[in-house]
Amino acid sequence: MATPEPNTTKRADARMNAAAIVDAATRLLARDPDASLADIAREAGVGRVTLYGHFDSRATLIAAVVDAAMARAESELSDVDLDGEPVEVMRRLLAASWRLTHRHGALVQAAEKSLSSEDLHEAHLEPIARMRTLLERGRSAGRFRDDMPLAWQITTIQDILHGASRAVYRGEHTPDVAGELIEATVLAVLAPPTGE
Amino acid sequence: MATPEPNTTKRADARMNAAAIVDAATRLLARDPDASLADIAREAGVGRVTLYGHFDSRATLIAAVVDAAMARAESELSDVDLDGEPVEVMRRLLAASWRLTHRHGALVQAAEKSLSSEDLHEAHLEPIARMRTLLERGRSAGRFRDDMPLAWQITTIQDILHGASRAVYRGEHTPDVAGELIEATVLAVLAPPTGE
Repeated sequence: MATPEPNTTKRADARMNAAAIVDAATRLLARDPDASLADIAREAGVGRVTLYGHFDSRATLIAAVVDAAMARAESELSDVDLDGEPVEVMRRLLAASWRLTHRHGALVQAAEKSLSSEDLHEAHLEPIARMRTLLERGRSAGRFRDDMPLAWQITTIQDILHGASRAVYRGEHTPDVAGELIEATVLAVLAPPTGE
Repeated sequence: MATPEPNTTKRADARMNAAAIVDAATRLLARDPDASLADIAREAGVGRVTLYGHFDSRATLIAAVVDAAMARAESELSDVDLDGEPVEVMRRLLAASWRLTHRHGALVQAAEKSLSSEDLHEAHLEPIARMRTLLERGRSAGRFRDDMPLAWQITTIQDILHGASRAVYRGEHTPDVAGELIEATVLAVLAPPTGE
């Protein structure tokens, strides 16, 4: 095996440092949404100068953390079987989405505080597209109500998932109970109205 | 009329300045959730030193803006007639809550970004208490489902109102359509399950 050129090694080191910083930030922000850049540098075992060399602000770093988290989430969500009766598929998709949301703990709050509404939307494009396909299929099949805009249903589902994450962080519910509440609430929101 | 003591005048001026800064911040943050302290000082017609004399950080100022906004909201919400059939009362209370939430525009986002989950909860104690009383009455009367924790129903309603505020700010719905969607969604969340 050839010895790599010094520059290649440096670039590889830099990539490893950046990855280590993103990993450390993911761990720390999951516990403490207000963790500072200094805290994150310490957790990553790098100096602040090194950290600033990769990420020029807390917002830039959090954006990178969210991108990495969403990429991992995407690889798990793409395993969910989307075939079958729409309500059953929705149950599976919500359960997987909640597992992933909950695993990231307070990172959800750090992201909501640090990123703009547009950037958060941007980061969720793939889960949104998957949810949209399922909602369209369920609406056509008469299993979900279609008298509300799709965009409203999608953001309501996201808001319920993120609200559950904050409620669990505040200690109001266990993660398991929150999972059941998410399912019951979202299915109630989507159920075709029966009239009174 | 006696001439006020110089110190009294100074204190009165300081109170007026603080009120002018809070008013200016309320106007500006409603349009731009990322408005800086320098922007707010300019809008209020005071120097940055004066502003920092009253509010030592952006978070402190936003907390004061939210307190003032919630106090005004409280005086309007307390006019809502809470007697009568719970579903009808809920419609009235949601309509008034949405009018107030929407009037504050992007301030909702500024507050969510700047304040902790606990501080936001603290600021909403009176509307939460009112909503709780109505939910308890509707649950006892069998008009709202009681197989979910009250705290979950309350935060879900808040999340739906705040999510609507962000969606209107992004231009996805008109305020009137958002009001209808809030009502339909919250009533669906609260309706006792009928079984399939």
